[in-house]
Amino acid sequence: MVKRTSFENAECPIARSLEAIGDWWSLLIIRDAFLGKRRFSEFEKSLGIAKNILTLRLHTLADHGILKSVAAPDGSAHMEYELTSKGHGVFPILVALRQWTEEFGDRKVSTKLVDRKSGRPVRKLELRAQDKRLLDYKDTAVRPSA
Amino acid sequence: MVKRTSFENAECPIARSLEAIGDWWSLLIIRDAFLGKRRFSEFEKSLGIAKNILTLRLHTLADHGILKSVAAPDGSAHMEYELTSKGHGVFPILVALRQWTEEFGDRKVSTKLVDRKSGRPVRKLELRAQDKRLLDYKDTAVRPSA
Repeated sequence: MVKRTSFENAECPIARSLEAIGDWWSLLIIRDAFLGKRRFSEFEKSLGIAKNILTLRLHTLADHGILKSVAAPDGSAHMEYELTSKGHGVFPILVALRQWTEEFGDRKVSTKLVDRKSGRPVRKLELRAQDKRLLDYKDTAVRPSA
Repeated sequence: MVKRTSFENAECPIARSLEAIGDWWSLLIIRDAFLGKRRFSEFEKSLGIAKNILTLRLHTLADHGILKSVAAPDGSAHMEYELTSKGHGVFPILVALRQWTEEFGDRKVSTKLVDRKSGRPVRKLELRAQDKRLLDYKDTAVRPSA
């Protein structure tokens, strides 16, 4: 959790996203939800995380409107968790994290992200100007919004 | 820091990137380095972070090859910190975090990321297939690498 110790960080959109997502566990929970996990026990097994921490993270993610809890389709008392549209919006963050490890990690990555239709790996995320020019960090600047 | 409690997470490229970046402070340090900050005192002032925590984070980032320490150009005993190419590779992650807040945050963002040449806001990060089709999360899948 980011401690908001300065106005600068409270206003920074990067710090604000980090605060909403909460911590690394939360990002891995979101990753698992993208991979189709829905039940408490599925997240617990995948993450090897203590029950109380998982409960807390699921609640925080629901409070931020990233996950919503829904009744299990089998009519049991179990709750399931699914991503909201805000949760689905986290996808580019997960892709950027994956691609950074693919490019700069110290060993090969054992999975790849593919385009379902062709089965071929996706391209690297592209940042473009309004006129479609490809932009690197050097081509950008942070300015006050109008 | 992600505790590696399962093989699944130790292999996951997202978990591995989170482990390298370390925690939110580390991402905000990288953000500040992109914004031109180089000195310990500059990071300290910007982040409002305790000296011992900042020292630890700078060392961890250097250990992971994300920052490197260089002698100050004024010939003083001060060290300065600059991003390596691996550090510059974090840029898409920061952009993805910013754009998520821009799209889903509960209030307006006070800054914008612009293309230096035109001064206009950048486009949203694009994920594309090899044949250039724009991909959403639903169009992708995670598969074992060959």
